[in-house]
Amino acid sequence: MYNLLKGKKGIIFGALNENSIAWKTAQRAHEEGAEFVLTNAPASIRMGELDVLAKNTNSQIIPADATSIEDLENLIEKSMEILGGQIDFVLHSIGMSVNVRKKKAYTDPNYDFTEKGWDVSAVSFHKVLNVLYHKKAMKEWGSIVALTYMAAQRVFPDYNDMADNKAYLESIARSFGYYFGRDFKVRVNTISQSPTPTTAGNGVKGFDGFINFSEKMSPLGNASAADCADYTISLFSDLTKKVTLQNLFHDGGFSNMGVSDAVMDKFE
Amino acid sequence: MYNLLKGKKGIIFGALNENSIAWKTAQRAHEEGAEFVLTNAPASIRMGELDVLAKNTNSQIIPADATSIEDLENLIEKSMEILGGQIDFVLHSIGMSVNVRKKKAYTDPNYDFTEKGWDVSAVSFHKVLNVLYHKKAMKEWGSIVALTYMAAQRVFPDYNDMADNKAYLESIARSFGYYFGRDFKVRVNTISQSPTPTTAGNGVKGFDGFINFSEKMSPLGNASAADCADYTISLFSDLTKKVTLQNLFHDGGFSNMGVSDAVMDKFE
Amino acid sequence: MYNLLKGKKGIIFGALNENSIAWKTAQRAHEEGAEFVLTNAPASIRMGELDVLAKNTNSQIIPADATSIEDLENLIEKSMEILGGQIDFVLHSIGMSVNVRKKKAYTDPNYDFTEKGWDVSAVSFHKVLNVLYHKKAMKEWGSIVALTYMAAQRVFPDYNDMADNKAYLESIARSFGYYFGRDFKVRVNTISQSPTPTTAGNGVKGFDGFINFSEKMSPLGNASAADCADYTISLFSDLTKKVTLQNLFHDGGFSNMGVSDAVMDKFE
Amino acid sequence: MYNLLKGKKGIIFGALNENSIAWKTAQRAHEEGAEFVLTNAPASIRMGELDVLAKNTNSQIIPADATSIEDLENLIEKSMEILGGQIDFVLHSIGMSVNVRKKKAYTDPNYDFTEKGWDVSAVSFHKVLNVLYHKKAMKEWGSIVALTYMAAQRVFPDYNDMADNKAYLESIARSFGYYFGRDFKVRVNTISQSPTPTTAGNGVKGFDGFINFSEKMSPLGNASAADCADYTISLFSDLTKKVTLQNLFHDGGFSNMGVSDAVMDKFE
Repeated sequence: MYNLLKGKKGIIFGALNENSIAWKTAQRAHEEGAEFVLTNAPASIRMGELDVLAKNTNSQIIPADATSIEDLENLIEKSMEILGGQIDFVLHSIGMSVNVRKKKAYTDPNYDFTEKGWDVSAVSFHKVLNVLYHKKAMKEWGSIVALTYMAAQRVFPDYNDMADNKAYLESIARSFGYYFGRDFKVRVNTISQSPTPTTAGNGVKGFDGFINFSEKMSPLGNASAADCADYTISLFSDLTKKVTLQNLFHDGGFSNMGVSDAVMDKFE
Repeated sequence: MYNLLKGKKGIIFGALNENSIAWKTAQRAHEEGAEFVLTNAPASIRMGELDVLAKNTNSQIIPADATSIEDLENLIEKSMEILGGQIDFVLHSIGMSVNVRKKKAYTDPNYDFTEKGWDVSAVSFHKVLNVLYHKKAMKEWGSIVALTYMAAQRVFPDYNDMADNKAYLESIARSFGYYFGRDFKVRVNTISQSPTPTTAGNGVKGFDGFINFSEKMSPLGNASAADCADYTISLFSDLTKKVTLQNLFHDGGFSNMGVSDAVMDKFE
Repeated sequence: MYNLLKGKKGIIFGALNENSIAWKTAQRAHEEGAEFVLTNAPASIRMGELDVLAKNTNSQIIPADATSIEDLENLIEKSMEILGGQIDFVLHSIGMSVNVRKKKAYTDPNYDFTEKGWDVSAVSFHKVLNVLYHKKAMKEWGSIVALTYMAAQRVFPDYNDMADNKAYLESIARSFGYYFGRDFKVRVNTISQSPTPTTAGNGVKGFDGFINFSEKMSPLGNASAADCADYTISLFSDLTKKVTLQNLFHDGGFSNMGVSDAVMDKFE
Repeated sequence: MYNLLKGKKGIIFGALNENSIAWKTAQRAHEEGAEFVLTNAPASIRMGELDVLAKNTNSQIIPADATSIEDLENLIEKSMEILGGQIDFVLHSIGMSVNVRKKKAYTDPNYDFTEKGWDVSAVSFHKVLNVLYHKKAMKEWGSIVALTYMAAQRVFPDYNDMADNKAYLESIARSFGYYFGRDFKVRVNTISQSPTPTTAGNGVKGFDGFINFSEKMSPLGNASAADCADYTISLFSDLTKKVTLQNLFHDGGFSNMGVSDAVMDKFE
């Protein structure tokens, strides 16, 4: 629509189906003139409909397990070949709690599940950054974004160990973001998005009630996946070159609300 | 460059000269297709070069003392006449400490100066919002931005009572932002900008040393006035519709640094 | 009970009646072995029952308008005479919004009321610190505490302009706290207390519903005035010598909750 | 000194030698009338001098690997036997990065080391809470404290992956603290301590220079291990019953400084 990403090259992790934030971001990045590679875990690619997105955005798909340095090296090398040079933007939209899937309570996890969820949801971001860093794959003034949720700062009981994983993820963004800034003039940020009815979000217990609460608390209502795609585009664009190490709330104002009139209506 | 603000109408407060963030924002808004009214206090207009900017951006100037409800009512009514309808974006870039100007220490202010600085730097934002609110002057999904500085969160001794004024200003953005979101679907945010060598910034004692410290601490270096203009454009655009009540650090990463290698070099 | 404040001398602002946090803090400070002066505005002393507290805690009362440097100078000089030396602890528990009292909406204040509320609720703290600082009235490792509320960080619509006043107050604690730390080894902090059914709290519209919401959101329930008195004692004691410039949430956990099961029950 | 912990029973993790914060906390808890069990990993017990502390504080030692649920179950059962009932306070002072020890850069870790450090430094706290929770081992209004560092919020390059581990640890304190509050009226907090020249701290590269920077930045100077012990006592006492889910900065004011005059002296 605006050619904001004209000539920019990217890698987008985590598009599963058309509800995914990563899916909508890919669509918007395409509209804004970017070229990119789509990637996801092989199992997610089988489950999802990534081919449709690839066709619509004229993109190639490179499967990669984001917990495997080897897969990531292959992904990033091939991406640079396909796209013809360094990368301008990366979206990390990966998260999964085995404890949530298996309905283990936060107070009584299986610690192997905890480790697996941490590895997939948080350490994967470190590994992506690690490979990008050592391959000098990011172009100067490039932008890396990971998606997160406010459970990293405040308690949402049903979010389970994803809260802790997101806290770790956000810390990686700061810790590694320092080196990307210092050494390559590349920015690293996280977007802390409203609860969103994606495939991942829908797995959370009590999700519908929570969406409703969040909608009533937020002066602008919840931000949708499409809204998040727009916001992500702004962070990939050249308009936000000096924003880095930030955790950016994209949530209709929820994060700075104590209570809204609409919520208070239920308590008076 | 991108037509990001095509068809949008705005009001820009606080352009003094070409070093001003508001000046550069006006230039960028013009490039992005916006139409707007420029305003400043009558005394600032006499001191500055606003005519040049108005000519270059094809804008009209309406003088207004932002501490006067009457002046603001006139400003907003006339702006809507000139621009032909409701307002899409407003930039508040107003700040002044009489105690700083008169070289009064933070620990020993003249409290009349304190009150004056608070009124000009912080309450003026409440009054702008008040008049916009009661005149229903903002268009749905419009965007209001005020500029602030991190002294609102952390101690920078030479920033004097501007620290407290900025804390009050940021609180207004949240408090009033709730009503703008709830009633008009309008967002209100503050940008917390790197120290910037504008006319206002240069009045702060020890400013050069501080700019240097801040540059060395920030992984991407300090954000310039031009960078800030770009970022402000992104917040006026339709890409950030669900961002509200936020204080957004635009500072090359300074706000999330504990210490950088470049700073540590001086202490080892 | 523990002799935590044995030999310590203090000044306590803002005890109105037995519901006041300052009243309960005075009682606890007395139990812990402190000697102190009680002070309040002349009008509040007439309205309240400070004599009873003074008798029970063996204290003297010195009326002072905390917006008057002259009154504060008199207060602090006389306090040091009465107590026989420098001050170890000060409690600032002063807050009042004329707009709230007069039922003016946040979006439509009387700006003279706004100025008055800011002066009484926030600038009074600067003036207290100013006089303590210039009279070198604080003993090394002394402790100054002001009471605040989380509306300084997040939106609670009925809190009106007290939100902005508390943001300014907390900024003063940091800004002036730096000088007290650097020059006198004295700490300055604010306690951000649960909503509390004091005379001041009860003035806020919808207060009962809000107390209920806050109780349900907080894992430990709301902190009472008596709890706050205990916590304040810990901050006056020698156990917390290196805590300074902090805003300390004393709220049963409310501040770090996103949502509780008890609140969600209303939305499912 | 004050009998603040008279009759209280506790478990203290992580005393290695007399420089340890846990060691000094044990001494202070003993002075305040508490009884407690000391615990550490078997290897740390062999390296350290825990016997001396046990003798001086009339305590028993129960070795436990804090990453082993089995060891923790044994520890907590035996502690309740020895102490004769439920536990009032617990200190978690455990942290170790294999990457730091093996001089691996943050940008180039061994991910097995990363996992090990995360398990020891962060997940161990979840496991301690898990066992306390399921054994209903905490007495009503008990207090659990874990030590952390501000690298969880801001970048300190040499802190390496301990930054991310501490972010995860602090998240656990909130996430699990909710359940402890709701179900047992027990509080869970973290203390974010100044850099401290303990055995652990000294392993960090450039630690001396950093201690110096931190000292110059903090208006009250760095908080010592002995200061931290005092502060921890206040959090174990009945004075702080309604403080929960908080990360409490105990750092002489560092966390809220932007820059101090003493630091600026190096840049002017």
